[in-house]
Amino acid sequence: MRKLIVFNHVTLDGYFVDANGQFRWGYDGNDDPEYQAFVAENASGDGALVFGRKTYELMASYWPTAVADQHSPAVAAGMNNMSKVVFSKTLNEATWKNTRLVKTGLIAEIRKMKSDSGPGMAILGSGSIVAQLARENLIDEYQMMLDPVVLGRGRTMFEALPEPLKLKLIRSRTFKNGKVYLCYTP
Amino acid sequence: MRKLIVFNHVTLDGYFVDANGQFRWGYDGNDDPEYQAFVAENASGDGALVFGRKTYELMASYWPTAVADQHSPAVAAGMNNMSKVVFSKTLNEATWKNTRLVKTGLIAEIRKMKSDSGPGMAILGSGSIVAQLARENLIDEYQMMLDPVVLGRGRTMFEALPEPLKLKLIRSRTFKNGKVYLCYTP
Repeated sequence: MRKLIVFNHVTLDGYFVDANGQFRWGYDGNDDPEYQAFVAENASGDGALVFGRKTYELMASYWPTAVADQHSPAVAAGMNNMSKVVFSKTLNEATWKNTRLVKTGLIAEIRKMKSDSGPGMAILGSGSIVAQLARENLIDEYQMMLDPVVLGRGRTMFEALPEPLKLKLIRSRTFKNGKVYLCYTP
Repeated sequence: MRKLIVFNHVTLDGYFVDANGQFRWGYDGNDDPEYQAFVAENASGDGALVFGRKTYELMASYWPTAVADQHSPAVAAGMNNMSKVVFSKTLNEATWKNTRLVKTGLIAEIRKMKSDSGPGMAILGSGSIVAQLARENLIDEYQMMLDPVVLGRGRTMFEALPEPLKLKLIRSRTFKNGKVYLCYTP
């Protein structure tokens, strides 16, 4: 049974992306060495990544570029080499290295992937995917990096969840840059 | 110069009240003794309370009752005796003990109150008040109790803030019941 986690930056008003689908504020505070070490460690796993279309397109347009390679070579190499799945009804192909496109049957496909053996899986961004999987209780861990900023508008990962989801805090860590890492299980 | 703080429970999707204006989930975990002691200490100040109409009506309909007195006598006595201000264009009177009604001029009145000498002031609930005062940079401290629950819908304290508000984390504390207390300054 493979574990499925979500990792997202979240603002103090609960948004993982702003009204334009961006999350630039998440990069503030990257000059904190302790935080940097945590991020590098966190990104170094050998797991697979799971995306919805919007997050996939954002990431696929950045990580394979020379800019990404210059700015964060280790993370870029990791992102490009990791096994990736994008769920989208509208995409016709997924050209980012090591990416598999799944056009229908999100829930069934995730159940199947979870029942396989293999490394853990992580969803980044992808609010619509998170909300659908949370409803079906298919997410094993919610990891959030709570950033010290309020946006006023944006999107949550949990839009229109049909009933409240009570979680259990299993780990937390506060960084000097004011970010708070929080890890919850259902 | 009096300090003005905000204290609110907030869900993991950023809401201080649910879609019906309620915050019942905030009472979960009240059986954690360390958390109980923190709440009692936090509520024991001699400051003044500031409300918008909705939160005022919710609190004024509960704290003066016999149920509140039986269930939480110390907090009820504190809430009833504290000096309170409610801002509302539509209320005609404020009958809860020690409450002053201010019908217009929120920003000017808060500026005046802050410039007086006296104990600190705290806003509870009152999202529309928080959003208006945050814009004018009149809030000195944002205290949040982050509850381990996701609602899917609700209201944030910061609706339609015209631009992002960057904050500084100055204190945090994690409780065994999974709540995380966070304190930020602008």
